[in-house]
Formats: sequence, C-alpha cells, structure tokens
Amino acid sequence: MYWTSKIKQLNWSMIFSIIGYVLLVESVLLLFPLIVNFIYGENDFIAYLIPIVLCLVIGYPLTLIQSKKGFIFARDGLFGVGLSWIVVSMIGCLPFVISQDIPNYIDALFETISGFTTTGSSILTNIEALSHANLFWRSFTHWIGGMGILVFVLAIVPGSNDRTMHIMRAEAPGPTIGKLVPRMKNSASILYAIYIFLTIVLIFLLCIGGMPLFDSLCHAFGTAGTGGFSILNSGIGGYNSAYFDIVITIFMLLFGVNFNMYYFLLIKEYKQVYKNEEFKAYIGIVVLSTLLIAFNIRSMYANIFEALRYSSFQVATIITTTGYATTNFDLWPMFSKIILFLLMILGACAGSTGGGLKVSRFLIILKKLKVDIQRLIHPQKIDAITMDGKIVEDDLVHNILSYFCCFMFFAFFCVLIVSLDNFDFETTITSVFACIGNIGPGFGLCGPMGNFSQFSNLSKIVLSIAMLVGRLEIYPIIIFLTPFLSNKKHKKRNI
Amino acid sequence: MYWTSKIKQLNWSMIFSIIGYVLLVESVLLLFPLIVNFIYGENDFIAYLIPIVLCLVIGYPLTLIQSKKGFIFARDGLFGVGLSWIVVSMIGCLPFVISQDIPNYIDALFETISGFTTTGSSILTNIEALSHANLFWRSFTHWIGGMGILVFVLAIVPGSNDRTMHIMRAEAPGPTIGKLVPRMKNSASILYAIYIFLTIVLIFLLCIGGMPLFDSLCHAFGTAGTGGFSILNSGIGGYNSAYFDIVITIFMLLFGVNFNMYYFLLIKEYKQVYKNEEFKAYIGIVVLSTLLIAFNIRSMYANIFEALRYSSFQVATIITTTGYATTNFDLWPMFSKIILFLLMILGACAGSTGGGLKVSRFLIILKKLKVDIQRLIHPQKIDAITMDGKIVEDDLVHNILSYFCCFMFFAFFCVLIVSLDNFDFETTITSVFACIGNIGPGFGLCGPMGNFSQFSNLSKIVLSIAMLVGRLEIYPIIIFLTPFLSNKKHKKRNI
Repeated sequence: MYWTSKIKQLNWSMIFSIIGYVLLVESVLLLFPLIVNFIYGENDFIAYLIPIVLCLVIGYPLTLIQSKKGFIFARDGLFGVGLSWIVVSMIGCLPFVISQDIPNYIDALFETISGFTTTGSSILTNIEALSHANLFWRSFTHWIGGMGILVFVLAIVPGSNDRTMHIMRAEAPGPTIGKLVPRMKNSASILYAIYIFLTIVLIFLLCIGGMPLFDSLCHAFGTAGTGGFSILNSGIGGYNSAYFDIVITIFMLLFGVNFNMYYFLLIKEYKQVYKNEEFKAYIGIVVLSTLLIAFNIRSMYANIFEALRYSSFQVATIITTTGYATTNFDLWPMFSKIILFLLMILGACAGSTGGGLKVSRFLIILKKLKVDIQRLIHPQKIDAITMDGKIVEDDLVHNILSYFCCFMFFAFFCVLIVSLDNFDFETTITSVFACIGNIGPGFGLCGPMGNFSQFSNLSKIVLSIAMLVGRLEIYPIIIFLTPFLSNKKHKKRNI
Repeated sequence: MYWTSKIKQLNWSMIFSIIGYVLLVESVLLLFPLIVNFIYGENDFIAYLIPIVLCLVIGYPLTLIQSKKGFIFARDGLFGVGLSWIVVSMIGCLPFVISQDIPNYIDALFETISGFTTTGSSILTNIEALSHANLFWRSFTHWIGGMGILVFVLAIVPGSNDRTMHIMRAEAPGPTIGKLVPRMKNSASILYAIYIFLTIVLIFLLCIGGMPLFDSLCHAFGTAGTGGFSILNSGIGGYNSAYFDIVITIFMLLFGVNFNMYYFLLIKEYKQVYKNEEFKAYIGIVVLSTLLIAFNIRSMYANIFEALRYSSFQVATIITTTGYATTNFDLWPMFSKIILFLLMILGACAGSTGGGLKVSRFLIILKKLKVDIQRLIHPQKIDAITMDGKIVEDDLVHNILSYFCCFMFFAFFCVLIVSLDNFDFETTITSVFACIGNIGPGFGLCGPMGNFSQFSNLSKIVLSIAMLVGRLEIYPIIIFLTPFLSNKKHKKRNI
C-alpha cells in the first residue's frame, strides 16, 4: 500500500519514455555482435534477432508516450536509471541463453549485469567455448556500461536540460559530477568523444603489438569500461607479453582518471589538472601501492623489474576496478593481498569509468576526520573542508559520510546472505566487495584463477544486485528495495 | 615543533594530578592479588611489591601538583584519560614480567592492556601455569577496566563538576553518556554501586552452582567487565555445566545493558526502560541472532536445546564483547561465523561495560540512512531523527557517522600492519576486529581455541593500540598519534 502510493507519485510517463529510448539504443548496439556473427559464419543469428525485435517492440511504443509534466525530480531520475539498467540487462542476457552458451537464465543475467556494471565477475568455467559473437557482446557490454547507457542516450536524444541533470547525476560515478559546458547534452557528447578516442588509440596500440584485431577490440572494451572480461581463460596473462601488460596498465590507469581532466587538457586549462587533489592522490596511491607490493613479492619473481611489472598491472587493475589479471595474485603474501583488498574498497576517481568508493570520497572523509580531531584540540577554531581550493559544503560532506556507512552496511548485509553458501571467510567477504566495487575477481574461490560458478542462485542474485548498487552508487537500487520508506505520514501530507 | 606547541597548550598540572590519583588507586588495587599470594603461599611477593612502590613513588608527588586553571577542556580530558590508561597498563604488567610468568615485556603489556580494555585476547598458550595471584590480577584488570579506572577515581576523589564531565565523557563507552544526578561525582558512585552489586550476585550464583570461590571471583570479574579471560585453558566450556553456561549468558547480557537502565529501575522509572530504543534493539538482535545460529548449527549438536544453549552463550559473549567461549565456534558454518563477525563490530549498549560500535550508534546511523533515502523520494519533507522520543541533534548524528568512518579506517590501517605477519585472511581481519571491538577471540589462528602468541611484536603493539582505541572510543588515543594536526595556522592564531 505504501509502495503503491510511492509509485503513483513518480513521473511515470517520463520514466517510460526514457526506457523506450534506452531500448531503441540497445537494439542498435545488438547489431554489432550480429555483424560479428556473420563475419565468423556462426549460427547465433536467432539469438540476437529475438532480443533486437523485443527491444523494438517494447521500446518504440514507449518513446511515443508524452510526458504531462515538463520536468522530473531526482527520485524520477534515480528510479528511471535503476529500472533502465535492470530492463537492459534482462534483455541483454538473452543471446547467451538462446545460443545455449549460458543456458541458465540467472547465470546469463549475472554475466550480463557483470558486463554492464563493468564488474567482470564471471560464472563461466571455459570462456573460450563461447562463439565470437557472444564473446564480442560480452566485452561490448563493458564498453557500453563504462560511460553509462543513459549518458549515451542523452548525447543523441532530444531532451531538456533539467531532466538530464538528474539522470546524469544518478548514473555518473562519483560525488562531483559537474557540467563541463552549459548544456548537459553537449557535456555528454564531449565525454563520449574522449571515451571513443581513447578506446581507438588503445585498439591501435594493441594491434601494432601483434594482438589479433578481434582480441584487441574485446580487450580494449574491457579496459576502457574498466570491466575485466577477457576472451582467454588465462586472461591478459595468456599473451605473456610485457608490451601488452604495460600498454594495458597505462590505459587502465588512464580510464580511472576523472574524464573532466581530459577536457581540461583539451581546452588547455593545465592548471585545473595540476591543482586537482583527487588526481594527485590517485597517482600517489598507485605509485606507493606498486612499490610496496613489488618489494613484498620480489622473491617470487626473477628480478625487481618483473616484480614491478606484475605489481603495477595488478594495482592498476584493482584500483581502477577493471579486474584483468596477469598473475594469480591470490598466491601473493597477505600484505600484498590486503593492499589490493583496500584498493578494491577505495576504487578509482570520480567521473571515470571505474567503480568503488572513489578517491575523492576517501579524501573528503579523511579531511572531515582531521577537522573533527582538530576541533577537539582547538574547540574555538572551526575549519572548513576544502577540495581543489574550493570549500566543500557541509551537506556534501555529510552525504559522503552517509554514503560510506550505507556502502559498508549494504556490504555486510550481502556478506551475510552469501555466507549461507558456506564458503571460506576470504571467499565470502571478498566476493561481495569484488562485486559491490565492480572489480571482478576477489580472493580464494573467486580469485583471478577462479570464478563465480559455484555460488548458489540466491548468492548470484544478491551479488548481481550488489553490482548494480555499486555501479549506480547505491541510491537508485536502494530506492527499489525500500517500499517501507513511504509511510503513512507522507500519504496524509500528499493528499 | 607542531607537537610541542600542542603539548604546551594542555593543562598539564591537571593531567598530572589526575594521573597521580590514578596511580594511588592502582597501588591499592594491587594489594588484592598480593593478598591472594599470601593465601596460596606463593612467591610473587616481590612481583607485586615493586609496582606498588612504583605507583606510590610516582603517584603521590603528582597528586600534590596544584592546578593553575580551575577548569579543563575536552582535549585535556581526552589526553589525561589516554595517558592514564597507558601509564596504568605499563605498571600493571610488571607483576607478570617480574614473576617470569610472562617474561617478555611486550607480551605482558599486551596481556595487561587486553585486561584493562576488557578485550580478553591472550598471548598465553598455557593459562593454568600462572600463579593464583597472577590469575587473580589478570581477571581483576577486567573488572577495573570495565567500569573505567577514572570513573572510579571520580567516585572517591574530590573534584569539581566541569572537570569530571570531560573525563567521564572520554572514558565512558557510547555516545549518550548523561548525568544521572546533578552532581557527576554522585553519578559515578551510583554506577559503581550497581556494578559491585551485580558482580556480588553473580559470584554468589556461581558459588552455589558448585564453582570454587577463586574460580567464581575470576570468572565474575571477566563477566562483569565483559572481558573474557578465563583461568582454565578450555574456558567456561571446561566446566561443562549447563547451569554455569546459562548463568553467565544471562549476566553477560545484563552487563551489556546501559547501566542507566538499572538506575531507572531503582528509582522505579519503568517507562524510561520500556521506551528505550537501544535496549529493545539489543534484546531483539540477541534473540534473532541466537535463533538464526541455533537453526544453522542444529545438526552439530544433540538436539535443538543444546544448539540454543551454545548459540545463546556465543551470541551473548560476542555482542557484549566478553569473549568467553563454551565451544569452538570457529568450526561453525560460515553463516553463523558471519553473524558473530557482524556482532563483533556492533558491540553492546552505550553506557555498559561492553565495547564495539554500540547498538545506539548503529540505530542512529540506520535512521540517518533512512532519512537520506526518504529525502530523495520526498525532497520537500525534512524528517528529524528521533531516539527514545527525543530529537537527536544533527551534530551528534554527524559525529556518529564520522565515528563509524574513523572506526573502519583505523581498522583497515591495523589490518594492513597485521597482514605483514602473513597469516591467512580470516586471522588477519578478525584479529583486528576482535581487538578494536574488545572482544577477545577472532576466527582462525586467533579463534576461541587459539591465541595471539604467534603474532609478531609489531602486530602485538598495533593490536594493543587497537584495544585502547576501541575501549576509549578512538579519540583519546588518536590525539596521541596525530602530531601533524596542530598546524601553523593554529600557532599563529594562538600567539
């Protein structure tokens, strides 16, 4: 009853029309693996035709719905984004099911949500058994999800400004999403242009290093979206090439940077980049972690350069929440594993394609704690928290503290459910953080050489929700799960 | 330099005089194990005489220091409390070292801090090898630390009201310490009277159940302080008595309740108890956890009553952060272990002798998250957070959010250091949470049948700090560790 009263208040016509456009875009995106299917002469035609037709049949009528109200609230944006992602995943997983490459629907949904959320956790035990079309689609979902499906829709679909702000806020990762240029639509286009450009450069670099074009495309999608699906069972390590390792390490780190930095570089505002505290902290954390781990694992590799090569790749893959692996870091000493575990929770920069808590949130919490302690020592003095030279509003600080608490509480809740599967402590804890942080592999059974196939259906569903919660930064999905929140008091007021 | 400027601002004369009184009290407390030594005709006379003389020689001159300022700031209270606990532990561990029962000073300090902070983590592999005097002192530290050394000092030493508030705030567990009666000194006396009364009832109940008086005293001290040191290698389980299990379960739970509740019962304000949300949540969590675990472990025990007996004891011991064990819960299914792990972080009620995050903080964070989500759905509506029918100030809510973040950040930092010992993931993570939450046993190597002897000296020191941070609720100890906080800006302002 509370639930229905809440549902009625939403701007449903607007939400439906957004979902309609998203589905039309998905039908176009599904054409790419269909082309791959023809090139390789495989039999997945029907497997892709059905979801394409579904997208068109459901999507087109929805786009015709006229909105009565001209604007939408934050709640509509959050709800619309959450619902879009769920619908897109539910249709996007059909090719795997119909082609029988992943016959179980829950498995296929897990794999697809893992793709769109750029997590990269897989339930597959033999990746190489998939058809080329399916391999392509699997990696392509990373690329689509990385920058955001709705941001893409915004970039191509006509829409008003105030509507788009809420959608972009709901989908874009991190606390500090701002408008690059006055019109949001243009901001979305600029971000996508940078994204496409960097991806093309990466594909080019992989090809000239000798990686086949198909492999280059798939791995570039996984890198750009900070996803982590590989097309080899042994991952990037399968190529055993220092060149690929270094190129992918660099590009993973590049895609973990706030995309606004590239825009500032383009318009020659170098000072904005230089004084960006999150960027500097990110670089510092990467360098420090790499050195600490390299020192810790030096005896396991031939020389310190090998140790640095493996530690830098693994640090980059975890902090950017990509999830590729070139070595089985589950076998590393506990100190290195704990550094990786903390990087899992930390995540990349706000406004990048990476997941996790985000470096800027971490910085603001640290500054808040510093101010709190300072206040105990000097009660007469009240320091404002600043970031990049600007004062951070108290409200934003408190929202970030809430976010961290919400993140940890939700993670604990998921751990409790996953523990029903009775795996070891390491697997239970890290599987949840690997999914909620959109990383991919954890430690133990779900480590870089393991997979998520052994989890129960209940755990797979909970972990799928965790991936969505992590990618959409909790609130859009939490709103779905909290019917109790719209209580009687509100109903009365709204009548 | 920053460090010295901060130190100069403190009200040192007041802090020294507090430490003086604390040491005098410690010298008196050390007489009790000395009496035990004579009763059992053991040779630990010198081992207790030296610390008693040290306390008198250092303590008495300090009490003569006259304070120039009549009042102290919160920072002085925090600093004084932190320093007192460190000094008391450094002298309190001497009997173990001098008697050669724990020859290594760091081990003895770990054991003593574990005692005073009511943690109950032990580095001993054979507890029964200790002399009676040392066993008594070891358990007695729990009882002393449970209610707080300084609260005891307040109850007996002349002091002004505003001074005592800050000290009591710094030492008392939980966010909602209030004055029971207008004079703080009287409040401290009332709390101690309740504490002593409950302890005597417990000793009596254990004795009539057939436990020897010495054992009853030691186990009552461990229960009352929610500490967890046993005098048997096999813990409470060694008696294999359902009667003892049930009595201790009930009393652990009683000592995990906010002591204000007993005061309200005394003055017949039943309504205050009935409407106390923390109390109700605490009972609810205990009952729910007990039932879930009993159901989960039912196949491991003879019947459901046995399962309930073991699950209720273990739930009580963990949520109240006592740390006794009647069974090796490390062998339980992961679901039960994760429930216990979450209870470790949660802890008991504010204003009890238990540690952890405290149920009331947990409730306030949950309410804050609920309000945050509500605000997304109904932006026009701003709900205040209430507790026990009263509005909780925004400042307190934000402090609690900060506290949780600080708690988790500090825990992660400790995990990183402890991981250098290269134990498994479970041992590394739970050893830290067992210490910071003042529980005692974790899982794995430091589980209920394990101990902390195998940790390196560095880890033992970090875990000792973690115990103090947990018991004193972070800030008193953090202030010690943060010289960088008093920066140039302050210096200029203060000249």
